[in-house]
Amino acid sequence: MRQAATADGVGSKGRRVEEALRSGLRHGRWAKGEKIPSVRAMAEELGVHRLTVLKGYRLLEEEGLLESSYRSGYYVRMEIPSGEASGSGVRWSYGAEAGCVAESRLAEIHGRAVRYRMSEALLDPTLLPNRFLAKHAQEVIANHPLLLSTYSTVMGDEELREAMAGYMRDRRLELSAEELMVTTGAQQGIDLAFRALLQPGDKALIERPTYSPAIDLLRQRGVCALPVDIRPDGYDLEQVENLLATERPKLFYLNPTFHNPTGYTVPVRQRKALLELAERYRCILVEDDAYSDLYFREPPPPPLFAYDTEGWVIYLRSYSKYIAPGLRIAFLAARPPLLSAIRPLKALSDGGTPLLGQKLFQSFFFSSRMQEHLAKLRVAVSMRKEAMERALSPSGWSWESPAGGLNLWVRLPQGLRASQLLEHSLELSAAFVPGPICDPLEAMHDRIRLSYSMLDERRLGEGVAKVIEAAEGAAAGNG
Amino acid sequence: MRQAATADGVGSKGRRVEEALRSGLRHGRWAKGEKIPSVRAMAEELGVHRLTVLKGYRLLEEEGLLESSYRSGYYVRMEIPSGEASGSGVRWSYGAEAGCVAESRLAEIHGRAVRYRMSEALLDPTLLPNRFLAKHAQEVIANHPLLLSTYSTVMGDEELREAMAGYMRDRRLELSAEELMVTTGAQQGIDLAFRALLQPGDKALIERPTYSPAIDLLRQRGVCALPVDIRPDGYDLEQVENLLATERPKLFYLNPTFHNPTGYTVPVRQRKALLELAERYRCILVEDDAYSDLYFREPPPPPLFAYDTEGWVIYLRSYSKYIAPGLRIAFLAARPPLLSAIRPLKALSDGGTPLLGQKLFQSFFFSSRMQEHLAKLRVAVSMRKEAMERALSPSGWSWESPAGGLNLWVRLPQGLRASQLLEHSLELSAAFVPGPICDPLEAMHDRIRLSYSMLDERRLGEGVAKVIEAAEGAAAGNG
Repeated sequence: MRQAATADGVGSKGRRVEEALRSGLRHGRWAKGEKIPSVRAMAEELGVHRLTVLKGYRLLEEEGLLESSYRSGYYVRMEIPSGEASGSGVRWSYGAEAGCVAESRLAEIHGRAVRYRMSEALLDPTLLPNRFLAKHAQEVIANHPLLLSTYSTVMGDEELREAMAGYMRDRRLELSAEELMVTTGAQQGIDLAFRALLQPGDKALIERPTYSPAIDLLRQRGVCALPVDIRPDGYDLEQVENLLATERPKLFYLNPTFHNPTGYTVPVRQRKALLELAERYRCILVEDDAYSDLYFREPPPPPLFAYDTEGWVIYLRSYSKYIAPGLRIAFLAARPPLLSAIRPLKALSDGGTPLLGQKLFQSFFFSSRMQEHLAKLRVAVSMRKEAMERALSPSGWSWESPAGGLNLWVRLPQGLRASQLLEHSLELSAAFVPGPICDPLEAMHDRIRLSYSMLDERRLGEGVAKVIEAAEGAAAGNG
Repeated sequence: MRQAATADGVGSKGRRVEEALRSGLRHGRWAKGEKIPSVRAMAEELGVHRLTVLKGYRLLEEEGLLESSYRSGYYVRMEIPSGEASGSGVRWSYGAEAGCVAESRLAEIHGRAVRYRMSEALLDPTLLPNRFLAKHAQEVIANHPLLLSTYSTVMGDEELREAMAGYMRDRRLELSAEELMVTTGAQQGIDLAFRALLQPGDKALIERPTYSPAIDLLRQRGVCALPVDIRPDGYDLEQVENLLATERPKLFYLNPTFHNPTGYTVPVRQRKALLELAERYRCILVEDDAYSDLYFREPPPPPLFAYDTEGWVIYLRSYSKYIAPGLRIAFLAARPPLLSAIRPLKALSDGGTPLLGQKLFQSFFFSSRMQEHLAKLRVAVSMRKEAMERALSPSGWSWESPAGGLNLWVRLPQGLRASQLLEHSLELSAAFVPGPICDPLEAMHDRIRLSYSMLDERRLGEGVAKVIEAAEGAAAGNG
């Protein structure tokens, strides 16, 4: 549905359309979720050609202010706030569901063919034990000739789930195979949890900033997302409790360990307190744990799930990211009542994650080679992190050095906007994620996420230099 | 959420609760979608213990009359009709979304460990070229060492999509790679299409009977499903047009080729007429095509998609079913505007079908061995069909002999109900699908679906004999 506004699209009549729309949005002529006049009606109202109106609508759609719905017109997605964006929650329109989810801007950035890919929080495939995996995979297939012809069960392969539950129990997570479901990536786990637990109009807490596809999913479900700030020392628990008490959200989606995009880790005492709050206010915690094993010195604290005695946590654990990411094997752990609300949705979504990937993952993961690989990987990733930090230091920009994970969350100097910097960086073939994409309020214009895992040290140095160079271009453009 | 009613659970007080509920449902005390009183309130009203009420609620939930929503109580899922179920549409409550999708009864039946599995419309793995697949898979992995470490794109592997678009073009389906998305099974394609196009409260046409997970998906989305009868000669197009004109449904989910469960095939002239109707009434046709290649004598007519010049069809094509079903590789074809409404949902659902399965599928599918395998498979399946028909003939029951696919849709003699027959059959270790599961109106008590693809000819004979034997037990039970 979404189409790029054409470069030549906005003449003086175009500006008139644009201004009429912005003013209508700013002064509440149309509320969030409301349908704005049809292209034809607006063209008549303003006395301009319909194409001019259409271009204006598309421009504001590009900016995320409008949303187009398949065959039914344009809707207000964001009102233009009169002052600064406040922390009081973003209410997405119910109409945001169905047929009008725009392609995410993240996908747009990843889609650019650039030399310096610092936008993707993925592991460089050259860091993975590819030969070992390939050889191993051949053996597994040879030993299981019916593997390619056999459906998985909805919950996932029982042998794998047994093995993984045992592995987690060894790490002090009380868990049985019945409490574990295999998902196609943690992304599917988030989607299933949200589908099972949230209805349009419901409320959910979400970190600010956060993993942007989670924002997209909430928007797509027409859920009211209430942001909770995450800082180097965790959350403001008073803010959390206040939101829980007054807004009664159904769930809190959080990523407390080497948080994406910031790299922050929520301390142990907060983890325990969060569980108490969840129990008291009957709010489910959807804990996304993708990076726990990618620590640089010390292992991080146990997940929230480890402190959950009453079944308030849905624990999304992905391991395949750093072994065989192409297999997309992840796990969703939850106590029986929650899991049985999710299982039917898994059945309806895809009938079960393909079996071959599960068996290959199992064979790799429980091999003696695994821990060895992981130890090496930690060193390699931390060296890349350090290379990026070295390359960034001349910039004078600031960031908290993360203790694990794949990202630096960098604060830009005053006057430099992330979107402008990105524009200039892309011209120099360097990509990163601008702050607003990670922000449920779509502000944080002074932040960028730089991922250090996809490039080797030399190229990281070059790529970061390009971004710093781009900042000069952006500053010149402003002057 | 769902729990089996305990066998000893219903005493005289229990019966009082049950009758109060049934009477309330029958006489419209609570409407469909409405929340019934809490367990505590009902216990007070009837002067019985809360556990007794809870058991009653669970019993009616088992019967599909009530639905429990996670932590929020019980809702009316079906009203008890005073007369016969009419063809005027089933309106599922909006509240049916989110956390209260019961495990499907189909999954329940498939989950039973029985000797004679005639409930599953899947191919027996022993009919597939397993050794060839395994050997081939090893080669593919050896030749692509980075395959296990590489993410797929959201749309699917480009090489595979190019090859498949070419294959379809050779079969007179005008299609480019950009119009093709790889999905994890056709099931995911249905889910994505419904999520992209339907909002709660929308209307959709659905065949009666149909593929039951599609019913579950519509229910889960809170969509109003309007049944269209399918018969040996196709649809009643007047009924279809009437529904299109008066109800303005957004889509029609249909399975016009070797239809599941009936085996019927919609004739060519109706295919053309359906396209005209779709265009005229702006209704999208979601065409599920899983069995086209499994014909016994003549290939079936081209899919609806072949007649679609204006982009009203979403074509779900699964091939992996009869090659390597464990890989779960299927395709969704649609013109760009529709596809771009679906693509963001695929991104949010799982980020893309795992690459390994795609590459393996591609390698098998375009191998010289493929067409040879398919020809043999058609013979093998048609022999199984004939074996089942021979075994059924002493029963005196009736069915239309299908020209392809995996199922017989059998009409039972008067007085024999599918659910009773199933109960007795399961005792004899034979499973099939009772008619009501395939019926959006949950009637069709005189029909059963018998799948002939999972058992060899001898076992089919034995299994069908068990079902016929069970009919005698059911009749005795009635007498």
